[in-house]
Amino acid sequence: MLNVENTIERIREIIDDDNVSQLQEVLDDYHSADLAEIFENIKPEERIVCFKNIDEDKAAEMLEYLSPQLQVELLGDIDEETASRIISKLPHDSAADVLGDMEDNESETYLDKLPHKFSEEVRELLTYNEETAGGLMTPKMMTVNDDMTVKEVLSSIRVQAQEDNMELYYIYVVDKQQHLLGVVSLRNLLTSPINQTIENIMITDIVKLHIDDYQDYIADVFMKYQYNALPVVDLYNRLKGIITWDDVQDIVEEETTEEIYTSSGIATGNVDEDEILTGSIFKAIQARTPWLFITLIGEFIAVHVGHKFEGTLQLLPVAAIFMPLLAGLGGNIGTQSITLIVRGLSTGELTLNSAAKHILREMTIGLLIGTFFGCLTAIVTWGWRNNLYLGAVVGVSMLINMTIATVIGTFTPFALKKFRIDPAIASGPVIATTIDVLGLIVYLSMVTFCLLKIN
Amino acid sequence: MLNVENTIERIREIIDDDNVSQLQEVLDDYHSADLAEIFENIKPEERIVCFKNIDEDKAAEMLEYLSPQLQVELLGDIDEETASRIISKLPHDSAADVLGDMEDNESETYLDKLPHKFSEEVRELLTYNEETAGGLMTPKMMTVNDDMTVKEVLSSIRVQAQEDNMELYYIYVVDKQQHLLGVVSLRNLLTSPINQTIENIMITDIVKLHIDDYQDYIADVFMKYQYNALPVVDLYNRLKGIITWDDVQDIVEEETTEEIYTSSGIATGNVDEDEILTGSIFKAIQARTPWLFITLIGEFIAVHVGHKFEGTLQLLPVAAIFMPLLAGLGGNIGTQSITLIVRGLSTGELTLNSAAKHILREMTIGLLIGTFFGCLTAIVTWGWRNNLYLGAVVGVSMLINMTIATVIGTFTPFALKKFRIDPAIASGPVIATTIDVLGLIVYLSMVTFCLLKIN
Repeated sequence: MLNVENTIERIREIIDDDNVSQLQEVLDDYHSADLAEIFENIKPEERIVCFKNIDEDKAAEMLEYLSPQLQVELLGDIDEETASRIISKLPHDSAADVLGDMEDNESETYLDKLPHKFSEEVRELLTYNEETAGGLMTPKMMTVNDDMTVKEVLSSIRVQAQEDNMELYYIYVVDKQQHLLGVVSLRNLLTSPINQTIENIMITDIVKLHIDDYQDYIADVFMKYQYNALPVVDLYNRLKGIITWDDVQDIVEEETTEEIYTSSGIATGNVDEDEILTGSIFKAIQARTPWLFITLIGEFIAVHVGHKFEGTLQLLPVAAIFMPLLAGLGGNIGTQSITLIVRGLSTGELTLNSAAKHILREMTIGLLIGTFFGCLTAIVTWGWRNNLYLGAVVGVSMLINMTIATVIGTFTPFALKKFRIDPAIASGPVIATTIDVLGLIVYLSMVTFCLLKIN
Repeated sequence: MLNVENTIERIREIIDDDNVSQLQEVLDDYHSADLAEIFENIKPEERIVCFKNIDEDKAAEMLEYLSPQLQVELLGDIDEETASRIISKLPHDSAADVLGDMEDNESETYLDKLPHKFSEEVRELLTYNEETAGGLMTPKMMTVNDDMTVKEVLSSIRVQAQEDNMELYYIYVVDKQQHLLGVVSLRNLLTSPINQTIENIMITDIVKLHIDDYQDYIADVFMKYQYNALPVVDLYNRLKGIITWDDVQDIVEEETTEEIYTSSGIATGNVDEDEILTGSIFKAIQARTPWLFITLIGEFIAVHVGHKFEGTLQLLPVAAIFMPLLAGLGGNIGTQSITLIVRGLSTGELTLNSAAKHILREMTIGLLIGTFFGCLTAIVTWGWRNNLYLGAVVGVSMLINMTIATVIGTFTPFALKKFRIDPAIASGPVIATTIDVLGLIVYLSMVTFCLLKIN
């Protein structure tokens, strides 16, 4: 792939030399995906210079690889006529995405300048929620009737598909009212006798999406059936558009990001993922505070536990200095367990059926690792403080702590899944706090009942 | 999509009734991806009964959707002749994957029974590392010469593509020695004049993979350029096979899992992800212990810090009970920052260029959230213990702690990225421990120098 840093340096030099024809030539040489990567990494003022010096077809191709913000920014930097022409070269779904991200009056200006038919079709797409099939699909696909022959279809493709922006993966068979009857793959079309009618070669068990389906469901369907493109129909089974696998890539990445964020206690419910990372600080705080607040309450319970044992800490202050050690390792091994189970449930590698088996498995792992780390801690502590009993109490607490942590870390995601709550919500914050509280109770009780009695 | 639970119940009843013909009929009705989902969720003995009752074409299609373990298990449960026939219906890359996951003598048995040409081709695939392009590709693709006309190519497709297992996305143009010269999309082929020569319509700026490329690189190329299929060439630019986007789905999922595991301190270097979750307990321990051990060392530093302040704790034991509160919230907000930055770097939304901006942004967020939580904690502590000074010390420590945590959580991934180390390694364990240690120093110093002096 491209060496971005070297490329940018080269382009920067050409811009500094003000050598327009060389700049055009160099930019024209790159694949539009490479151009997009370059654009993401140069300064805004350089971006404008470059954007004005690529031809409009390439500009449209490149825009598709860029983030919505950058798309809107770049189009706003050039004159409206050129921008409209570039937008009209985008596939319908991409055009709708760009226009949907603009201010209303801005997008209206462009829509008025676009070719009438294109503009009407894009306007329809804009009426759908952008997280549903309607908002993701493109209305351009190859449709034929079921009484046509392979030969007729092939010549029809020659006409229809030459139209700009047509995606060509499958041929969709519809009746006069656009009801979806069947699907023919290009491969099937190309290898069937040319006088065969479409009705005889089409598949009628169609995997299809409904126009109101949400994007997480759409991603699941694509991941499961692994088609390149899927048809989208309305309530009456009328074909409205298609969604292609490259649209789904972005959804999958977005869903994964959401899963990872949720696991670390970043609430994605009311705030868009992009905004949390790069948007207003207020939005970021809104996403981050809720789980922190729950942690605060949980940790105050830990403080309360500590308070109950204040007498012990007064008599044996050295006990306090081992608290972070126990909390740290318990939290750590617990997080490992949660991560494994949440991810396994998310990829489908784990199902509820195996819950008991996995809780047992993690408990065994917790016991074994806990024994090892418990012994290690006991020996180090004993050697350092020259106090066998203290060593034993810290070591046994470590063992119990780590085992409890694995069990809670495994049990909780399964339990949430059982009650149809997103298991990712379990993770990090709440469980770490729970483990903190339980660990503290175990340790301080042991100190109180074993150590104080002996001393 | 399928309601798996209801379906399984229905199938279970049919099996119990011993109604073979009904079972065949019902199973035949499902899409092979649905069958795979059903197979993943029924008991092993039911699986065998069902597997013996689907026809061989469907069995082959379904196998492709299953995990390697299940594939090997199912094939081992039926007679070798049938198993060989099913394997011979798989695409070459899938056949190689299945055979590669078997014991050597077992796969040899099948290879000997397979059609000679197929067996030879699969044997060649088995010589490649399964994480490289060679191990992922299928050697079946449509190749043509550059002097053929569109018409000749179309009739050639009719012959070549009818051969089983041929993927048909693009037409690859090669010379007599199989050197890759160009690529023609099916759409381009179908819309070009039929007497045009291929040379005139092929694209020669080809995005291609090398046979030794590793899967993470391959996934990056697919994600960037968003093609359905990419050609794989050897050192001399000879076309060896193609990789299709559905092969890449699995890689992306695997890479994401690896990233998530690494972030939670599960070492994926020497142990396969699958094995950590479901393999031998020994392997799981091997993956989980290293970072726990580093945490142990880190937390012993925390113990040492505590030890330095033992005098303080002796005079003011109540100070100890706030330690978990501070560590909990610091760790939590720090983890949020790490997660955001590591994920941003991984999706490409963040680059090193924006490091300074983001460190500042996170610091501001840390200061604001820290001030809020600091005040809250101070007020609660003051009210509860009726000690304004204690409240103030705990509150100010909270503020400093949370701010430090965001800065460390943001800075570390960027720094690792700068030195070309996987930023994911930074996460969870090490940083949480660092924050623990620094937080303890801040808090106990404040207790010592402010609180003890006042009392």
